[in-house]
Amino acid sequence: MKDSFYDLGFTKLDTGRKERTGFGEVVFCHGKRNEFLKDIFSRLFEANGEVLGTRATQEQFELVKEILPQATYDSVSRIIKVQGEKKKLIGNIAVCTAGTADIPVAEESAQTAEFFGSYVERIFDVGVSGIHRLLSQTEKLEKANVVVAIAGMEGALASVVGGLVSVPVIAVPTSVGYGANLGGISALLSMINSCANGISVVNIDNGYGAGYIATQINRLAIGGSVKNQAGGK
Amino acid sequence: MKDSFYDLGFTKLDTGRKERTGFGEVVFCHGKRNEFLKDIFSRLFEANGEVLGTRATQEQFELVKEILPQATYDSVSRIIKVQGEKKKLIGNIAVCTAGTADIPVAEESAQTAEFFGSYVERIFDVGVSGIHRLLSQTEKLEKANVVVAIAGMEGALASVVGGLVSVPVIAVPTSVGYGANLGGISALLSMINSCANGISVVNIDNGYGAGYIATQINRLAIGGSVKNQAGGK
Amino acid sequence: MKDSFYDLGFTKLDTGRKERTGFGEVVFCHGKRNEFLKDIFSRLFEANGEVLGTRATQEQFELVKEILPQATYDSVSRIIKVQGEKKKLIGNIAVCTAGTADIPVAEESAQTAEFFGSYVERIFDVGVSGIHRLLSQTEKLEKANVVVAIAGMEGALASVVGGLVSVPVIAVPTSVGYGANLGGISALLSMINSCANGISVVNIDNGYGAGYIATQINRLAIGGSVKNQAGGK
Amino acid sequence: MKDSFYDLGFTKLDTGRKERTGFGEVVFCHGKRNEFLKDIFSRLFEANGEVLGTRATQEQFELVKEILPQATYDSVSRIIKVQGEKKKLIGNIAVCTAGTADIPVAEESAQTAEFFGSYVERIFDVGVSGIHRLLSQTEKLEKANVVVAIAGMEGALASVVGGLVSVPVIAVPTSVGYGANLGGISALLSMINSCANGISVVNIDNGYGAGYIATQINRLAIGGSVKNQAGGK
Amino acid sequence: MKDSFYDLGFTKLDTGRKERTGFGEVVFCHGKRNEFLKDIFSRLFEANGEVLGTRATQEQFELVKEILPQATYDSVSRIIKVQGEKKKLIGNIAVCTAGTADIPVAEESAQTAEFFGSYVERIFDVGVSGIHRLLSQTEKLEKANVVVAIAGMEGALASVVGGLVSVPVIAVPTSVGYGANLGGISALLSMINSCANGISVVNIDNGYGAGYIATQINRLAIGGSVKNQAGGK
Amino acid sequence: MKDSFYDLGFTKLDTGRKERTGFGEVVFCHGKRNEFLKDIFSRLFEANGEVLGTRATQEQFELVKEILPQATYDSVSRIIKVQGEKKKLIGNIAVCTAGTADIPVAEESAQTAEFFGSYVERIFDVGVSGIHRLLSQTEKLEKANVVVAIAGMEGALASVVGGLVSVPVIAVPTSVGYGANLGGISALLSMINSCANGISVVNIDNGYGAGYIATQINRLAIGGSVKNQAGGK
Amino acid sequence: MKDSFYDLGFTKLDTGRKERTGFGEVVFCHGKRNEFLKDIFSRLFEANGEVLGTRATQEQFELVKEILPQATYDSVSRIIKVQGEKKKLIGNIAVCTAGTADIPVAEESAQTAEFFGSYVERIFDVGVSGIHRLLSQTEKLEKANVVVAIAGMEGALASVVGGLVSVPVIAVPTSVGYGANLGGISALLSMINSCANGISVVNIDNGYGAGYIATQINRLAIGGSVKNQAGGK
Amino acid sequence: MKDSFYDLGFTKLDTGRKERTGFGEVVFCHGKRNEFLKDIFSRLFEANGEVLGTRATQEQFELVKEILPQATYDSVSRIIKVQGEKKKLIGNIAVCTAGTADIPVAEESAQTAEFFGSYVERIFDVGVSGIHRLLSQTEKLEKANVVVAIAGMEGALASVVGGLVSVPVIAVPTSVGYGANLGGISALLSMINSCANGISVVNIDNGYGAGYIATQINRLAIGGSVKNQAGGK
Repeated sequence: MKDSFYDLGFTKLDTGRKERTGFGEVVFCHGKRNEFLKDIFSRLFEANGEVLGTRATQEQFELVKEILPQATYDSVSRIIKVQGEKKKLIGNIAVCTAGTADIPVAEESAQTAEFFGSYVERIFDVGVSGIHRLLSQTEKLEKANVVVAIAGMEGALASVVGGLVSVPVIAVPTSVGYGANLGGISALLSMINSCANGISVVNIDNGYGAGYIATQINRLAIGGSVKNQAGGK
Repeated sequence: MKDSFYDLGFTKLDTGRKERTGFGEVVFCHGKRNEFLKDIFSRLFEANGEVLGTRATQEQFELVKEILPQATYDSVSRIIKVQGEKKKLIGNIAVCTAGTADIPVAEESAQTAEFFGSYVERIFDVGVSGIHRLLSQTEKLEKANVVVAIAGMEGALASVVGGLVSVPVIAVPTSVGYGANLGGISALLSMINSCANGISVVNIDNGYGAGYIATQINRLAIGGSVKNQAGGK
Repeated sequence: MKDSFYDLGFTKLDTGRKERTGFGEVVFCHGKRNEFLKDIFSRLFEANGEVLGTRATQEQFELVKEILPQATYDSVSRIIKVQGEKKKLIGNIAVCTAGTADIPVAEESAQTAEFFGSYVERIFDVGVSGIHRLLSQTEKLEKANVVVAIAGMEGALASVVGGLVSVPVIAVPTSVGYGANLGGISALLSMINSCANGISVVNIDNGYGAGYIATQINRLAIGGSVKNQAGGK
Repeated sequence: MKDSFYDLGFTKLDTGRKERTGFGEVVFCHGKRNEFLKDIFSRLFEANGEVLGTRATQEQFELVKEILPQATYDSVSRIIKVQGEKKKLIGNIAVCTAGTADIPVAEESAQTAEFFGSYVERIFDVGVSGIHRLLSQTEKLEKANVVVAIAGMEGALASVVGGLVSVPVIAVPTSVGYGANLGGISALLSMINSCANGISVVNIDNGYGAGYIATQINRLAIGGSVKNQAGGK
Repeated sequence: MKDSFYDLGFTKLDTGRKERTGFGEVVFCHGKRNEFLKDIFSRLFEANGEVLGTRATQEQFELVKEILPQATYDSVSRIIKVQGEKKKLIGNIAVCTAGTADIPVAEESAQTAEFFGSYVERIFDVGVSGIHRLLSQTEKLEKANVVVAIAGMEGALASVVGGLVSVPVIAVPTSVGYGANLGGISALLSMINSCANGISVVNIDNGYGAGYIATQINRLAIGGSVKNQAGGK
Repeated sequence: MKDSFYDLGFTKLDTGRKERTGFGEVVFCHGKRNEFLKDIFSRLFEANGEVLGTRATQEQFELVKEILPQATYDSVSRIIKVQGEKKKLIGNIAVCTAGTADIPVAEESAQTAEFFGSYVERIFDVGVSGIHRLLSQTEKLEKANVVVAIAGMEGALASVVGGLVSVPVIAVPTSVGYGANLGGISALLSMINSCANGISVVNIDNGYGAGYIATQINRLAIGGSVKNQAGGK
Repeated sequence: MKDSFYDLGFTKLDTGRKERTGFGEVVFCHGKRNEFLKDIFSRLFEANGEVLGTRATQEQFELVKEILPQATYDSVSRIIKVQGEKKKLIGNIAVCTAGTADIPVAEESAQTAEFFGSYVERIFDVGVSGIHRLLSQTEKLEKANVVVAIAGMEGALASVVGGLVSVPVIAVPTSVGYGANLGGISALLSMINSCANGISVVNIDNGYGAGYIATQINRLAIGGSVKNQAGGK
Repeated sequence: MKDSFYDLGFTKLDTGRKERTGFGEVVFCHGKRNEFLKDIFSRLFEANGEVLGTRATQEQFELVKEILPQATYDSVSRIIKVQGEKKKLIGNIAVCTAGTADIPVAEESAQTAEFFGSYVERIFDVGVSGIHRLLSQTEKLEKANVVVAIAGMEGALASVVGGLVSVPVIAVPTSVGYGANLGGISALLSMINSCANGISVVNIDNGYGAGYIATQINRLAIGGSVKNQAGGK
């Protein structure tokens, strides 16, 4: 039932989330204690038949692999995936970055979206200081149901992309930069104040969150509800 | 053509925007000089057959009415509308507020969405300090294609709503509150750091922006593209 | 006497504090030099017959154990306790967390309250993104004389709990989160701006402080004054 | 019933709050529209037999008086009270201020506590720059079940009071001061970082909130629960 | 001599500045007392044969006109000019704005540059949300010796312009916007963190400062030194 | 006696302050209610034979004059003085400003120092953008026992003066400036981070505070203690 | 062609930049992955015949040297240079620092300018707390076409230099300092608020950016356009 | 001569400072390169016959000892001293701390003052949460010519001390604390906003700066000028 949860004492796994929202609970691995991690992954795998873990270390992956040998790890996105046969990827999400240093956040975003069944088009290193690079990609952008725009420093990419497309843009500020970038706060403020329409913003470096929302929108665009397209167990 | 614009010297009206994005250019009236306002409204009406003006004063409305007598004004949302026959409102957008003081922002959001053809369900004064009020509205929330969650002070509404629905939540922090609310920055930070999935954030008091994005998503959910459903001249 | 202190040169131990406030002085171990630590613990044990040390490392514990072999250490809360026979725990304090990452702060809070003689009910991982988990605990919440609500990220737990109970809520923002959480400042601002009544706030990660205040209130609720229930030497 | 509310469309009055929390809903008058104000006061008076309104203007009072002629107004605290026969005030709450400019906040706090049935001892203008003034009041302080410490500028009063008493201190930063007081943020930070134990903090200028919490604690100290002592209709 | 100054008691007019820097002292009129204003204008006119006053009100202009009837005033830029025959304007400075609300700052910049002898090309309302408007102006941009890029909100214009031209860009953040624009701080941070090369930044709304620096660079580009081209008495 | 105070109910006048510190209590008039103001001035005049009021309006002065006709008012410094025969001014305090807009703060500082018996040398409009103006005043600076350096905007004056003199410099940041001056916070941070030795800082626009400290130092420099030179009743 | 780029998948090298702006693309080495670094350096060397890398580690240099043995490394500026025969250095840029701790930023600036063909005069350790050191260098300053002023702490150097010269000053705040220097934000604010004319500011520690802009201005001053003097392949 | 300096290329040693200000140049050792350190110490020893180095590591001390074997090092204050025969310490400076964690800053302050010839009274661990500890030291406080008050967290010590003494108080905020202490900014704001008179503030953890100013004031109090009492070569 959608309000069910599994009480492990230290944690209450929201096993009803998949039914309630169309997305199984995801494990934010950063800082999770080893003794808890195995338990969480195996319970969620049991409940949902697949598990996604974000912000994981190589060491955490080794632990998960002991109990779920089919788990895989990607060192750029730092994602652990436990998933069955390859899903058919549907719809179209464009994931853009301003620079190469934003790629880890972009991969977290793209791989989250793919885990949840979305087709992703990657458009990297199209920052506005050489606007012709971005303009050369308009054809790809126009095919997307939603665009994820990822940028650090002054975060201007989101505004320019927002002016080029008709679909929603999910802006992800990154902590890329130095000095007055304030660890990403400057890019966040920039995106929140965008002069373009259709832009909403998530937390700094939150590639996962953007991939999740983009999937919600992509599912709606394909037709039917978010939940019906969740597939799953 | 989608890259056309109309050069009035002091301004370059983006008359290609409707074709490019599915939404005609909207007039942000705050601080616009009287001599420019009439010109902008008449040019945009000519180009798009309808005009929306936000953050308008009663005085500005009187001016616009001189040239476009069919214009209407709503003092809560501060919106000027010039629009032909009533549009058929499609889809479903839920607009929620935490308190009554957030209603002006909510009306800006709802009326923007309605102007662009979306059906809006208003759910006001359901702040989390009396959670039963919000829980009594879950049926309405579940019918929406997208939810706009509007709150000042600590902005917790967005997170609780995000946990209840499967669709995207557009969170609007408001400047409602005092002291350490920092003019809405506290609510903004709260929403950006939400522990719930599916939440993205727009600027403080930006009801218009949330109504715009909600319409983009609502159009995608109805089927077809954002642009095709824009109606038009 | 209540205004007495013990002058060790580098420090002036407030040995009158137990008589004055009902609580013996507690050692904040973080950054204390080894040579001072032993001296402080032995003088306070002499004065009060028990000692509590917070934010301690395993190494500091080993040092204390050399002179007070009955000392114990808990690695989650990082608390050193030197205490005689088990106290009877009185009253009822509920300690809630939004997530599992908040547990170290919660344990510091709970164990502080227990050290000072309060009974503690632990309610962990009931964050608002799955509100049913919190609502399933209302019976426990209603038995408490005071609730400690601990949360990082957007800190919305405090407001929702505040709306559910009739007793005071001590809100503890934590540094859990990333990006725009600003090391806990966002959660702090959120809690300070709570739309719910009955909420007051302590410093980021200050589990100790919340456990202390909760004990003061719990003692008052049991009857008699804070000081009379302090027990003592 | 405790989960009931009265839906006026623009607002959902939490008429179950008194049963749920022991306190009837209070009207934050600031910025409320005239047309709503009368309706809200009359409905709440109907439900609870008494109403408290904070941050009210003289004009708002005149409006309320039209429908509830027994209403009274205090221009220092800006409180509107509608209350029957005089309540017997119980327990003991000390309300202290650092300076005379903090008195409006103090009166909001004291009169809120009195409205809810608490006895209040006022101790004004005892800021730490002339510490003898505060020390001359220790006898009064020692009789309180809880102390409200109100200060602007550097907010040091809370820490000094915290060191003198054994009961909880609710600290209220005020916006009194200029320049680097940052509208009260400096005093807020000061109080949150207090070196004294037993101090928790509410929003800047939030006299009402402190009076509410102090009443919760005062009721607990008198014996029985917060709710049982709420009196009522 | 370049180190000379004229001591009026309340002020020390830097009459050596024109010789030292190639620019006569300019009067920042905002907040200047009436009795001082006339004295300052007449002394500077005496020393330099021309005077520029910025941030002036209509009232201040009337005062100045009493003693210097040839003075002129522009209500958009709020500049008072006292200048002899028309100067030949040399070189080429492009002054761009993102929106129409930035025009007062742009005019302050342009008219300052013109006062000091520079030719100015105005390119207004070319914000990045409709990038085709900016791209249609590249020919004009390429003729400039230096570009002044003026924008509020997210300030992205500076970065895009910086990527299109080979000459220095002076970025001016404006206070245009609302909410999280923080009175222009967001645009300032954005410009300081620009991913484009060749961008340096002045204070919020500091059109004057940008016009001054642009003139310095324009003079250097024309050949000879900044000072030699200052013209003068 | 030094710990005495006069309890007016709403305020506790620190009548022991003059004996304790060598300075009578000063009235910060800003926001004081009319009914209190007269009482405070007459009680302090009774206790100390003289009174100083800062941040006063013309209206407040009229009120004070009713009861103390010998009172005088200066509209630049906004100081009310009630003082007997002219004091002999001793020692030497230099009060410098960067610009003319800083003069009101400087006069508050200078007149406070003069009220308490110090000789003051005014050195105005010597900001660092024309360093020769400051260097022309070194002879005056070298005679001072202490220097008050007052500046807004970037506040660089304090550092340059600090490098020129051997005596302590009291730096006063002012709110003069606009945009990123953050109401004086930028100048405050600048002065706190000064690379010069011998500089300490007071609150933004706190001319009074600087005049007070300068007098303390000036008295010490003249010989004897601060208190002995207070003169007085 | 000026709009060309080279697509390596993970990055899009802006090979048209040299033609478009007169400067080849520069490699910001910080955080670049080893596998990408070699590829980027060799492609850019191919395109431009020279490469500049900033913020490089010794390890990164070793990697680059494997493929481009003529590369050199400077451990103070952390610059990798791959350049052919010595260029003739033209014009005159003065690079000043307030202290010795600012030298790494200054060398990044100076070596960037030299790489792009500018003659650089180094004037180090001339901070304003000993103003005679700076004044002794005025002859050198007066020969410059543009001055780079580098300072941490309170950043006052920029204002004083700005008052001494007639040419543009590029101000570089550094993170040198501690405590309230806020990692360089205090110096940045100071420079942005400078009371001197002719000062524009780049990001904290951005020596490269200042060297780049200074070169643009220096080229303009020498005569001809920025692009024509870029030399090149 | 007072304007002389010694140019080492990378640095310009201000050898005229002792004559100009009464204090020889001090070495801020933090981050100084080894090759420079020896040179700087030996040149300054040559010029002044003594040297003080602050923020030094043990390693730096070993280096200095190689060339100046009489050098000594204190690991608490991190000060290197090279000084001849013991000076007679004059006057009286009280150095107070709120807690034991503030002692390193206090020792930097005390030892700086002693190096420059002042007698120092240490009063440690007298924080306001146990006000009787501070009140027991009033006799010592009253003997001082100036008080240095050092505190982290909420920094209330400065205000309470300021109310007790008649002499100037130099307040030093420290970075002691956690969470919302913001690395010392909270204590800094607290001290800047002090309600007590006679308080001025230096940078966070700047014990050296406070010791320097305290010495300036102490010298003035003893009689004669700051410079005459500098002793020296």
